[in-house]
Amino acid sequence: MKENLYVIKIGGNIIDDDEKLKSFLQSVASVKSHKIVVHGGGKLATKLADSLGIQQKLIDGRRITDAETLKIVTMVYAGYINKKIVAQLQANGCDAIGLSGADANIILAHKRNHPSIDYGYVGDIDRINTELLKSLLENSLTIIMAPITHDKQGQLLNTNADTIAQEMAKAMCNYYDVQLIYSFEKSGVLLDAEDDSTVIPSINQNYYAQLKTEKKIFAGMIPKIDNAFAALKSGVKKVIIGNAEHLKEIIKNQSGTEITND
Amino acid sequence: MKENLYVIKIGGNIIDDDEKLKSFLQSVASVKSHKIVVHGGGKLATKLADSLGIQQKLIDGRRITDAETLKIVTMVYAGYINKKIVAQLQANGCDAIGLSGADANIILAHKRNHPSIDYGYVGDIDRINTELLKSLLENSLTIIMAPITHDKQGQLLNTNADTIAQEMAKAMCNYYDVQLIYSFEKSGVLLDAEDDSTVIPSINQNYYAQLKTEKKIFAGMIPKIDNAFAALKSGVKKVIIGNAEHLKEIIKNQSGTEITND
Repeated sequence: MKENLYVIKIGGNIIDDDEKLKSFLQSVASVKSHKIVVHGGGKLATKLADSLGIQQKLIDGRRITDAETLKIVTMVYAGYINKKIVAQLQANGCDAIGLSGADANIILAHKRNHPSIDYGYVGDIDRINTELLKSLLENSLTIIMAPITHDKQGQLLNTNADTIAQEMAKAMCNYYDVQLIYSFEKSGVLLDAEDDSTVIPSINQNYYAQLKTEKKIFAGMIPKIDNAFAALKSGVKKVIIGNAEHLKEIIKNQSGTEITND
Repeated sequence: MKENLYVIKIGGNIIDDDEKLKSFLQSVASVKSHKIVVHGGGKLATKLADSLGIQQKLIDGRRITDAETLKIVTMVYAGYINKKIVAQLQANGCDAIGLSGADANIILAHKRNHPSIDYGYVGDIDRINTELLKSLLENSLTIIMAPITHDKQGQLLNTNADTIAQEMAKAMCNYYDVQLIYSFEKSGVLLDAEDDSTVIPSINQNYYAQLKTEKKIFAGMIPKIDNAFAALKSGVKKVIIGNAEHLKEIIKNQSGTEITND
């Protein structure tokens, strides 16, 4: 019988809101199982870049990471946000440790090689090194991952936090019964994006295909759901998309949208 | 017989110089014993604050850390510099992990309580939690410490890197034969601050008193040497002040100023 591990991605809109973040972290602290929290960066990196007069470019919602932008996301994600989360969890009696993918070579990546778009210093993941993660979890530590990886050639890379959560969840399946939670500001996958009461309780492959055909899933949700199905195929026990403020209910199966492989 | 542990403080002027930092990190990677590197921040935090129009105040060489400055030093020290050092060590085959004092509650501190000066969010150290440090070192990891601590009430604090190096060196004496190295841009404690060939090979308490009486020690060096004597009294085996670019020679006793308790 394996122990439970929750891999929880926390979305940008929650990170930007001090009250919501505080409430989310109180819930994280109350979860007794092993846990890894993966955070993105919200609007802080963009704000800082604006203040410094650095132009930001996005293609398909992905930031183009030039050298100056990499410096900013490393500062904001691995510095400010990561340590703020760690300090707040510590205050809630949860022994947290904040890391990037470069630390202890936890996430090895390579600079994205795209036929037509130069994404800059964006990293695609090659390998998760699970040994140290397991050892930290067994020391009762909660791991807080910033979405920064490296190529082991000295180059830091900016990597999508949803993808990191998925890859870490998959990699840890050898040791734990892993549940992957994508938490953000909405209550799950919604039939009507404007109405938080239209949460779809569960989505399987067939229903997903139907929702896509009927154009009832909006674009931003598609990579998340694709990620979710990929995780399930690789051994993750359960994937739920839901509201960060309902984390306790999500864990009790009382909230959010479960993605199922049947 | 205890194993060796080197606690190496790296000074700001080296961090500001890409070539010198690279060469220093190659030397760190070549040291086979256990090691902890404590870094300061150099001029990057000041530069970033200037770019953002945030005024910096210093009293006796210590930064007054208001809320905005704390945000900046957390970003620059725990984010940019810490991860840059980790990534470069990884590229040199040295498995490094970058941490702040909030991570795993490694350095518990309290906001400085001074009768006349409000230093802002500056932390004085209460306790070093050695268990995890020991476990990481025994997993062959090199620990890179950013000079950010916390109070376990959710508040991050800015703490002097020299003091962190000293406190960590002292705390680890239970487990290791600890050598503390303060490395910076000069070859050691100099009789003539302008002439790098006037290194004093060794300073004991009597000689230190004499140098101070003769005003041959300049102000910036005094807290470092006071730190060094305090470390020796608490069980640290050896303290050397020397040039970061001569780290290998310092370790071989061929460079720098040794502070001795005799």
